[in-house]
Amino acid sequence: MTWVRVPPGSDFSFDNLPFGIVRPLRPAGMSPRAVIRIGDHALDLVAAGIAPALTSQPTLNQLMASRAGRDVRSRAADVLSGPERADWLHALADVEVLLPISIGDYVDFYSSIHHATNLGRIMRPNAEPLLANWRQLPVGYHGRAGTVAVSGTPVTRPEGLVPGADGVGQLMPTAALDFELEVGFLVGGPRATRISPDEADEHVFGAVLLNDWSARDIQGFESQPLGPNLAKSFMTSISPWVVTIEALRPFLVDPPAQQPEPDPYLHARRPWALDMHLDVELNGTRITETDFAGMYWTFAQQLAHITVNGATTGAGDLFGSGTVSGPTASERGSMIELTWRGTQPITLADGSTRAFLDDGDTVTMRGYCSTGSRDDDSSGRVGFGEVTGTVLATPSRNPPRPDASVGHTEPGG
Amino acid sequence: MTWVRVPPGSDFSFDNLPFGIVRPLRPAGMSPRAVIRIGDHALDLVAAGIAPALTSQPTLNQLMASRAGRDVRSRAADVLSGPERADWLHALADVEVLLPISIGDYVDFYSSIHHATNLGRIMRPNAEPLLANWRQLPVGYHGRAGTVAVSGTPVTRPEGLVPGADGVGQLMPTAALDFELEVGFLVGGPRATRISPDEADEHVFGAVLLNDWSARDIQGFESQPLGPNLAKSFMTSISPWVVTIEALRPFLVDPPAQQPEPDPYLHARRPWALDMHLDVELNGTRITETDFAGMYWTFAQQLAHITVNGATTGAGDLFGSGTVSGPTASERGSMIELTWRGTQPITLADGSTRAFLDDGDTVTMRGYCSTGSRDDDSSGRVGFGEVTGTVLATPSRNPPRPDASVGHTEPGG
Repeated sequence: MTWVRVPPGSDFSFDNLPFGIVRPLRPAGMSPRAVIRIGDHALDLVAAGIAPALTSQPTLNQLMASRAGRDVRSRAADVLSGPERADWLHALADVEVLLPISIGDYVDFYSSIHHATNLGRIMRPNAEPLLANWRQLPVGYHGRAGTVAVSGTPVTRPEGLVPGADGVGQLMPTAALDFELEVGFLVGGPRATRISPDEADEHVFGAVLLNDWSARDIQGFESQPLGPNLAKSFMTSISPWVVTIEALRPFLVDPPAQQPEPDPYLHARRPWALDMHLDVELNGTRITETDFAGMYWTFAQQLAHITVNGATTGAGDLFGSGTVSGPTASERGSMIELTWRGTQPITLADGSTRAFLDDGDTVTMRGYCSTGSRDDDSSGRVGFGEVTGTVLATPSRNPPRPDASVGHTEPGG
Repeated sequence: MTWVRVPPGSDFSFDNLPFGIVRPLRPAGMSPRAVIRIGDHALDLVAAGIAPALTSQPTLNQLMASRAGRDVRSRAADVLSGPERADWLHALADVEVLLPISIGDYVDFYSSIHHATNLGRIMRPNAEPLLANWRQLPVGYHGRAGTVAVSGTPVTRPEGLVPGADGVGQLMPTAALDFELEVGFLVGGPRATRISPDEADEHVFGAVLLNDWSARDIQGFESQPLGPNLAKSFMTSISPWVVTIEALRPFLVDPPAQQPEPDPYLHARRPWALDMHLDVELNGTRITETDFAGMYWTFAQQLAHITVNGATTGAGDLFGSGTVSGPTASERGSMIELTWRGTQPITLADGSTRAFLDDGDTVTMRGYCSTGSRDDDSSGRVGFGEVTGTVLATPSRNPPRPDASVGHTEPGG
C-alpha cells in the first residue's frame, strides 16, 4: 500500500497519516514545516509541493482554518502509495518535533462519570458524589492556552499557596503533583457558533493525547468560588501528532446511555464515542489502562455545549475530554484516584511507592484505536504515539510543608 | 503643546496618547494600522513613518511584544508637538475603530472586597461573606479570549441551562443578564514568569475598560465545581484605546492596607493602586460611580500571582481587575449588587425599572484619571473613553422560564 516501511505494531500505519510540525536538523537553518507521519518517518509536505502556502507555516493553524486538511492528507496518501520518493521523507531521528498548534482557547471538561464519582467520594465522602448539574451538562472550565507544551517538555513542580493546619496559605512547591489522562480535540474551519452535536466532524480537525498536570493542594485552596487556576495553569502537555477526524471515523461508536436524557441541544443521532485504548506508565510501570469509549459526554456534545450560548470557536482551539477513568480501580486516570488522595500509595516495578509524583518521575501516556484485537499488531492501527514529561524540582527555597492538606474542594477536571 | 485642537474635557489629552487600531474608511481598501489618539483625531503612525514594520500590523501585538511602545509613543508626541502635519491625522468619524489586540490568555479576577462581600452576602446570607482564601490570594479564573470584542459590538442575550423549581435545567435565554464594571490590563514584552509585583510596569503595556457580561442564572447552575463557563464566555467587551502604563504612572498610588499581610510573593514596595474614576450608564441614566484605587488586590499583585507557579505570560494577554464596587450602595459595579439579586429593582430616568438587563438596553462604562479635581476639564486628564454595548434578543424559541432561579452559588468575577 505504501513504499515506506512501517514497523509492525506502529501507531502510524498508512490508515493514520497524522499531521505534525517538525524542524529538520540538517542542513542547519531549516524552517519548521508541516509533515505527515508514517511509521518512523515524516513526509515533508513542503518538499512534496503539497499546498506549500499552508504547509510551510510554523503551525498547523492556517491549514486547520482552511478546511484543506482532508485534501492535503489525501494527496500525501497518493505520494506515499505512488512512486518512491525517499528524498521527501525525514527519519524521525533527523527532525525536532514541535508543538503543532498555536492554541486559541483551551477548555477542559470533566466528562468521565467514573472520574467525577471518584473525586466526589474522595472530597465529599458523606454526600452524593455527583453534583446536581453533572448529568445535565458537560461541566468544564477555561484553561491556560499559553502554557500548552509538546510532549517531552519537562514539567517544573509548581509553587502556590498551600494552607497549613492554621488555614494560612504559604508559598511552597506542591506536595500533590498529579497527572490527568485526557484526549484533546482540536478545532478547524472558520469561526462558528451554535454547533449541533451531529455537525461535530465539520468543526473538529483531529485529536491528540493530553496530560492536564495538576497540583491538588494548590487547587483545593484556590478553587472557590471560581474554579482552578494556578493548580492547572503551569503546564498542559499534548502529543505532537494530530490524528485527523477522517482517520478516527471508523472508530466512532455509540456512547453509553445517558440518564436523565439531556436537553435537546445535546442530543446526537450519530455515534460520537471514540473506541480508543489508553494507558499510563510511571517510570516504566504501567499504572492505568482504560478505554475512552465509556466517557459519559462525547466530544460532539462538549463542542455543542461551549457554543450554545453564542460563543464562537475557531481553528486552533483545543478542548480536553476531562480525566479518563474507567469503572475499575486499575482504570483510574489520575494519581489522586489511584492512591485515593494519597492514602493508598501505589508500588512501582522498582519497589518504590508513590502517593503523588516525585521529582524525576516520568509520566508517559499512550493511546490507539485498532480494528483488530487489542494486541493485534497488524495494519488498521490508528495510534497517537505518546505524551510524556519528566518532573523537575521547583527552583525554590521552601520544602513542602509536612502538614499540608491535599485540598478541601473537588479538584476535578 | 500640540497643534491638534483637543476639546476641553477630552479623555485624550496630550498627556494620554493611547494606542489603537483603525481602518480608514476612505480611500476604500485601506488596511488596518496602529494610531495614537489625541482629542477627536488619530495620528496615523504608518503615514508618519514611525516604526512602520510594527505599526502597519492589524493588531498591536507585535508592537507590544517588541518593547518599542514607549519609543513609538514618544516619537508620536514629537510629531504632535512639532510642525503641523494634518495629513497624518484621521478624524475619528473617518475611521473604523477595531479590536486593538489579538487576545492571548484572558484571566479575570475578583479583587474588590466590596464586590466579593456583596456577592457573599447575596449568595450565602447566613455565612461569613468572604471565603477563607479571599484575603490570601487574588482569586481568578481563565475566561474566553476568542470572544473579547471591541466597544460597540452588540451583545446577544445568551442561552444556557437554567434549572426550574424541579432542579432540571432547560435551555433558555438568560433571565439575569448582567454587566461587570472592570479595568483590563494588557501584557507586553517577551514571555515571562515569576514576575514580582514591583516589576509589573516592565510587563504591563497598558489598560482598557472591560465589561465582563454575565448570565447569573446560567452561572449559578454550571459553576460547581470548576467555576463559570458559559455564563461568561459569550462575550467580554473592552474599550478600543490602550492607555499606556507611561500615561498612567502619575496616577499610581498606595493601595488600601491588607489584613492579614499576604505571602511575601505578593508584597510590593512601590504603589500599584490606580487613582481612576469609573462610572456606568444604563440607557443614559448613571447607575454607578466609583473609584478604582480602593481595589484590595492591585494589578501588580495579580500579575505576580498568575506567574508564581511558573506559568508564562506574554504580549497580548489580558487580565481583568474583577468587578469594581465601592463601599456604598451607589458604587456597585454590577446589576446583581445594585438590585440585590433582582429583589430591589432600580429605576431609570424614563421611569422604567430593571432587575437585570432587558433586550435593547445599552450599558456604557467610562473611566479617567485626572490630576485636577473630578470636574476639572483642563489638561492632565488621562481618560479611557468608553466601552459600550446594546443587548440584542436571543435568536431563539424559548421565553425565559418564570420560575427560574438566579443561581445557587457565588457568581463573582
